[in-house]
Amino acid sequence: MGYRLAELAERVGGRVEGDPERTVEAIRPLESAGPRDLSFLKDPRYRAQAAASGAGALLVGPGLAGATLGRDLLVAGDPSWALARLLAVFHPEERRPPGIHPTAILEPGATVDPQAHVGPYAVIGAGAQVAAGAAVLAFVALGRNCVVGEGAVLHPHAVLYDGTEVGPGSIVHAGVVLGADGFGYATYQGAHHKVPQVGRVVLEGDVEVGANSTIDRAMLGETRIGAGSKIDNLVQVGHNVVTGRHCILCGQAGIAGSARLGNYVVLAGQSGVAGHIELGDGAQVAAKSAALASVEPHAQVAGIPAIEMRKWRRQAVLLSRLEEIVRRLRTVEKKVGEES
Amino acid sequence: MGYRLAELAERVGGRVEGDPERTVEAIRPLESAGPRDLSFLKDPRYRAQAAASGAGALLVGPGLAGATLGRDLLVAGDPSWALARLLAVFHPEERRPPGIHPTAILEPGATVDPQAHVGPYAVIGAGAQVAAGAAVLAFVALGRNCVVGEGAVLHPHAVLYDGTEVGPGSIVHAGVVLGADGFGYATYQGAHHKVPQVGRVVLEGDVEVGANSTIDRAMLGETRIGAGSKIDNLVQVGHNVVTGRHCILCGQAGIAGSARLGNYVVLAGQSGVAGHIELGDGAQVAAKSAALASVEPHAQVAGIPAIEMRKWRRQAVLLSRLEEIVRRLRTVEKKVGEES
Amino acid sequence: MGYRLAELAERVGGRVEGDPERTVEAIRPLESAGPRDLSFLKDPRYRAQAAASGAGALLVGPGLAGATLGRDLLVAGDPSWALARLLAVFHPEERRPPGIHPTAILEPGATVDPQAHVGPYAVIGAGAQVAAGAAVLAFVALGRNCVVGEGAVLHPHAVLYDGTEVGPGSIVHAGVVLGADGFGYATYQGAHHKVPQVGRVVLEGDVEVGANSTIDRAMLGETRIGAGSKIDNLVQVGHNVVTGRHCILCGQAGIAGSARLGNYVVLAGQSGVAGHIELGDGAQVAAKSAALASVEPHAQVAGIPAIEMRKWRRQAVLLSRLEEIVRRLRTVEKKVGEES
Repeated sequence: MGYRLAELAERVGGRVEGDPERTVEAIRPLESAGPRDLSFLKDPRYRAQAAASGAGALLVGPGLAGATLGRDLLVAGDPSWALARLLAVFHPEERRPPGIHPTAILEPGATVDPQAHVGPYAVIGAGAQVAAGAAVLAFVALGRNCVVGEGAVLHPHAVLYDGTEVGPGSIVHAGVVLGADGFGYATYQGAHHKVPQVGRVVLEGDVEVGANSTIDRAMLGETRIGAGSKIDNLVQVGHNVVTGRHCILCGQAGIAGSARLGNYVVLAGQSGVAGHIELGDGAQVAAKSAALASVEPHAQVAGIPAIEMRKWRRQAVLLSRLEEIVRRLRTVEKKVGEES
Repeated sequence: MGYRLAELAERVGGRVEGDPERTVEAIRPLESAGPRDLSFLKDPRYRAQAAASGAGALLVGPGLAGATLGRDLLVAGDPSWALARLLAVFHPEERRPPGIHPTAILEPGATVDPQAHVGPYAVIGAGAQVAAGAAVLAFVALGRNCVVGEGAVLHPHAVLYDGTEVGPGSIVHAGVVLGADGFGYATYQGAHHKVPQVGRVVLEGDVEVGANSTIDRAMLGETRIGAGSKIDNLVQVGHNVVTGRHCILCGQAGIAGSARLGNYVVLAGQSGVAGHIELGDGAQVAAKSAALASVEPHAQVAGIPAIEMRKWRRQAVLLSRLEEIVRRLRTVEKKVGEES
Repeated sequence: MGYRLAELAERVGGRVEGDPERTVEAIRPLESAGPRDLSFLKDPRYRAQAAASGAGALLVGPGLAGATLGRDLLVAGDPSWALARLLAVFHPEERRPPGIHPTAILEPGATVDPQAHVGPYAVIGAGAQVAAGAAVLAFVALGRNCVVGEGAVLHPHAVLYDGTEVGPGSIVHAGVVLGADGFGYATYQGAHHKVPQVGRVVLEGDVEVGANSTIDRAMLGETRIGAGSKIDNLVQVGHNVVTGRHCILCGQAGIAGSARLGNYVVLAGQSGVAGHIELGDGAQVAAKSAALASVEPHAQVAGIPAIEMRKWRRQAVLLSRLEEIVRRLRTVEKKVGEES
């Protein structure tokens, strides 16, 4: 079974250079693709690998159209987006069958739509609601009064504390913990006394949370992740954080309590955001950096503490020249000394 | 149902400015509080928000007493501590009912106090003991000979390897792993051979461990977390680490093997502590910083490697002036050059 | 029950200085060892503790042979390796009994070798294979078509997504997630669209993965961890990463997508590796550092961005002298100013 190249081009609004009748049976990376596979070349740097690849056809962007790569080409306006769609053609998303596994436990007042899937050994707390098309997989612990929206997927071992809400179409990966107590204590007479954390966590629609990430419930009110935001693995989001829509939080990033992120904010890997600050729409924090003060919309910051990225880059260059600077200073000192 | 403002003031040793008879039905943040709610203003910076809030009453500290905020005030000596106590008044901690869920598995020789709660699908290993008032929630895996103290709570999916001890009143959040093998290998003839990790983990009383944090068992002896210490989410504690009492380890902090922390040590978010070093009582490591050498009691350190914080701050300022410094050097060089 | 010191020496190819007939009943750290215990002194810095210890005998390396420590000595050529072996003598690894717990769920087509152990509430997906001597412990979720090699151990709550392969002798600790979706999106018309992640994760033989670490499946093809590699807790490995053999990834390290590591690469604690770069055989990245560009074989790098370690050390020294440098510049400026 396969698809004609012309048919695939049509699906992504692209066009064929070469043989439109070529049959494509799979999408594979350059190094393992064969004559019946489609591979892709998004970055011209990999041109040599593309030339050496056994792939019968290549997905490329307009910049590589007409390139003599010796292959049939599928030219798409946005090859990343086209690749995503073609992968979905060859690997259609699995629909888990509706029904509740006999070992799952529904506490009193839990309601599961007949079109939802509940896997083995899942526990659905009292008053929780699971909507149509949602999948609650093995060992998921849903607390009381949780809400799982239409089509949302909770992977094995996800834990939702009481009152957590997961919006429609959201994906929560294995080991994620939503709604654990925020880290709040009042220190009194030498001991740290727990400040009750009585708020909750809300993921809006189309949010994805990576494996073993943690998002704490609010002390009061809500910790909220905006619609369409994507969170990688091992990310920590503190209590009362609110993010806008379409944010990207990369692996091992962390956000301290009560920080606010606008829309389209990007936190690169292992970056951090201090508590109670604000990151404007489209702000970006570089990898390993720490935003300790609020960041203007669309600003790119880097360093610890994070500063404007261009400035940080110049600093890095000057830092690497410190030895030379000291040497020059010594030369000047000698000259001046001699003269005095 | 509600409380008179005077009654709440009495509970926290505070006093009312305004109407002591006002009824309070809930505690809410400034932005969502209404006339029957108490809100709070701990930081004068939020004064404008307080003025704009619909809250009927405000909890404030002595510094804001008498302030014309146009609200009834509850003035407390320590408003953070008062807030913690008032939240507990409105949201009393739930006591899980004693009893063992029929799906829980008790291996031979496991003993569970009749006054303890064991949730669905928990597994209690051979020889393990669960004390009165403790709660072992869904999917918790208790290894052999573990000890869970009076009133301790193990949230869903916590894993305790064999021999782990959790002190009375401690709270272990979802996904925490206590007692996994320390990271120890002997490299011999090109391969890394596992050094058996045969010690254990002890949490003393009143410790809290945040979601998905990991504390490794000792190679020999104990990894030990001192009484009253509080650990945030995704924190890593290596084998044979010993902390004193009332330490605070913020999100994503990490401590390498055999480090020793005194009492009241604070590790800010994403900070790190090298192996085999010592942090004196009250030492503090700033966010994103790495203590690579021992730290004196009550010292505050920052940077990578961490140095005295005041010194680090001055360095950061000078760094931001590097461009100017190089410019000045160039000017001097020219002058000297002209003269020579 | 115990062992004669001479017998222990023989097992590690060492020799005794003192009484070869001394009986040793346990191995203990210096501070808690008694007359019937063997302790160890690998680092001469701990000599005073060794002198003060109650240990009857000490394991030492050749450099401390003949030292008048007032104890019987077991002198081994490689005391770390000898300690690992002696710990295994006193604490032989437990062999879990073969058999499948009655609460475990095997989906259709799952095959478990009669010599494998499957614990309570484990779920083995359709088509998965568990080899002889392997142990799949409580609450493990094995996806479809997973392969668990001979003698491999999956600790409680490990999650393997569909198609994951764990090589013979490998150890996967509690809470580890293997094969969750890589973090890949195509941004189109303002929304981040999921790029289907249809590859898988392969751990080769003798790999160990620490608690709550996460290794993502490849977008296409494989994310692969080379034989003999050891991964600590809370480590993140992105999609399509490939590591060589015998790598060491310390706690909270992170590797972004498609990075390639050679053999014997070491990532120290909380370090990071950018996507699509290459680290040559034996390369080492220091703690808290971030390799943002490819690293030559056997190079040691540090800093953010990581540079040659010796250079980074000199920079750190110069940084600490910045105040002095500015002072000297001011002096020169004054002199030059006076002269002009």
